[in-house]
Amino acid sequence: MGFCPFCEGNEDKTPPEIYAIRPPGSPADGPGWTVRVVANKFPALRLEGDLDRTGVGMFDRMNGVGTHEVLIETPRHDQNLPDLPEAHVEQLIEVYQQRLNDLKRDPRLRYILIFKNYGVTAGASLAHPHTQLIATPVTPQIVAQELSAAREHYVQKERCLFCDVIRQETESRERIVYDDGQYVAIAPFASRFPFEIFLAPRKHAHDFGDLSKEDGRGFARALRDVLRRLRVILQDPPYNFVLHTAPNTSLGPRREGYWTTLPYDFHWHLEIIPRLTRVAGFEWGTGFYINPTPPEDAARFLREASTGEA
Amino acid sequence: MGFCPFCEGNEDKTPPEIYAIRPPGSPADGPGWTVRVVANKFPALRLEGDLDRTGVGMFDRMNGVGTHEVLIETPRHDQNLPDLPEAHVEQLIEVYQQRLNDLKRDPRLRYILIFKNYGVTAGASLAHPHTQLIATPVTPQIVAQELSAAREHYVQKERCLFCDVIRQETESRERIVYDDGQYVAIAPFASRFPFEIFLAPRKHAHDFGDLSKEDGRGFARALRDVLRRLRVILQDPPYNFVLHTAPNTSLGPRREGYWTTLPYDFHWHLEIIPRLTRVAGFEWGTGFYINPTPPEDAARFLREASTGEA
Repeated sequence: MGFCPFCEGNEDKTPPEIYAIRPPGSPADGPGWTVRVVANKFPALRLEGDLDRTGVGMFDRMNGVGTHEVLIETPRHDQNLPDLPEAHVEQLIEVYQQRLNDLKRDPRLRYILIFKNYGVTAGASLAHPHTQLIATPVTPQIVAQELSAAREHYVQKERCLFCDVIRQETESRERIVYDDGQYVAIAPFASRFPFEIFLAPRKHAHDFGDLSKEDGRGFARALRDVLRRLRVILQDPPYNFVLHTAPNTSLGPRREGYWTTLPYDFHWHLEIIPRLTRVAGFEWGTGFYINPTPPEDAARFLREASTGEA
Repeated sequence: MGFCPFCEGNEDKTPPEIYAIRPPGSPADGPGWTVRVVANKFPALRLEGDLDRTGVGMFDRMNGVGTHEVLIETPRHDQNLPDLPEAHVEQLIEVYQQRLNDLKRDPRLRYILIFKNYGVTAGASLAHPHTQLIATPVTPQIVAQELSAAREHYVQKERCLFCDVIRQETESRERIVYDDGQYVAIAPFASRFPFEIFLAPRKHAHDFGDLSKEDGRGFARALRDVLRRLRVILQDPPYNFVLHTAPNTSLGPRREGYWTTLPYDFHWHLEIIPRLTRVAGFEWGTGFYINPTPPEDAARFLREASTGEA
């Protein structure tokens, strides 16, 4: 194993600590931490400067104002998220929340995306367990599409779209991967990818930043359990996960270009995508995905997997 | 090199010939052809049966009615598209047109997608040069988005959106890769991927099936030239290309679920995507792409590339 800047003891090889869970009194940028947040050394976006929105003929241009952080999940190089004790995953979730709520205060940041690339095929450039955070100065396309579908549904029915999906799925049970009453993991109907998973709280909640201690504990338990199931069934597959939460809820409710704080426009959830198939010409040309594994089969395999725990 | 079902002499190892360019009188499913079309042995969609559209609670389900063909570009295993003589590429383009126009007659087929995966990373499972065709019973999402953007532009301005882009790009020259007066290749403004290319006729045309002999010859020349440039600059990269043309133009003009024959709703074009970067969590979560190569640089490299021809 080569040198790793994320390992305990190498704190001086990363940009300075933004936040960490560490014993009271232990100095920043030294050892002893459990979860540690630093700026990405090669950031996709930077906080300096103004957006400078301009037109270029019929096109639009703006500067890449935003932020790109690395959330180091554990001091140990060889301990992946599903290997961590539940209480450690709970601390990681608290760090997700802390970063989200801290960055919300900057009104230039319209969306705060938390995601993880695990394995080289899934885009991970460093093996040490880490999650990434990128905050963008615009609401991402994919989020805007989900928001407007959910809003349209709410306007028509005065019910949350995601709550309706969760209700239908928990009644039919066919695509349920995990369900402890508090959180539910589903192999989505018409999944794009084999073993794709949708994980969400059963109780309606639009902003991940608002999670109670109890909600955080439940999410840690569900996430860890589902990742253990994936690891057993697919033999430690590369995967991406992406947290979908409401856009920066400290901004006022705007509509079209998309911020909103209205609680029923969204229901936070996590998407987990194992990277087993290749995206090729058909997918790029259509936006459709050919999935050889029916979600009903994927759900059954995952539901019946033995996670090595009671 | 192992056995290849697409090589000349192995015609009995593929499903029967659907169409071929071969000398008059030479029997189907024997040697002597230049370009040969067969059904895909492992099709994504099949023509048998009905769509049987049904609701499943709040979801929708239908059967996979459609067709999946393989267009074998040359009898020779080691001769890729940019190696073929111009006249041969012209014949390949004629075959694209023939298949498109033939399948249009089936009103269940709403869209006919022609695309190529080159290289394992780009999703090619067989090395022998081939293009694929998948006809779908619905208008693909991506196509519908392009159509509605183009239509909105036309309604406002009575001008084709793509014609406007081409005009702006040919005036500025900054992102021009190739321009022979008849066809133009552009590194798109805010390209998603390094060295992504948009190739289109300068003269407005919505349906690739309507190409004249002269248009076909020009497209063959432009396509071959651009692929030679990519090969030189990026050392034979894996790539996908996807033809974007109007939905089945034999159907009447419908609006929202999307067929249309109205000529100004679309301008056919080819998208070429070299597969140099990985799509990871950020891209899945946002629909945004981080591109380390500005299109202005990509265009300059490609423009100045020596294709080994006059």
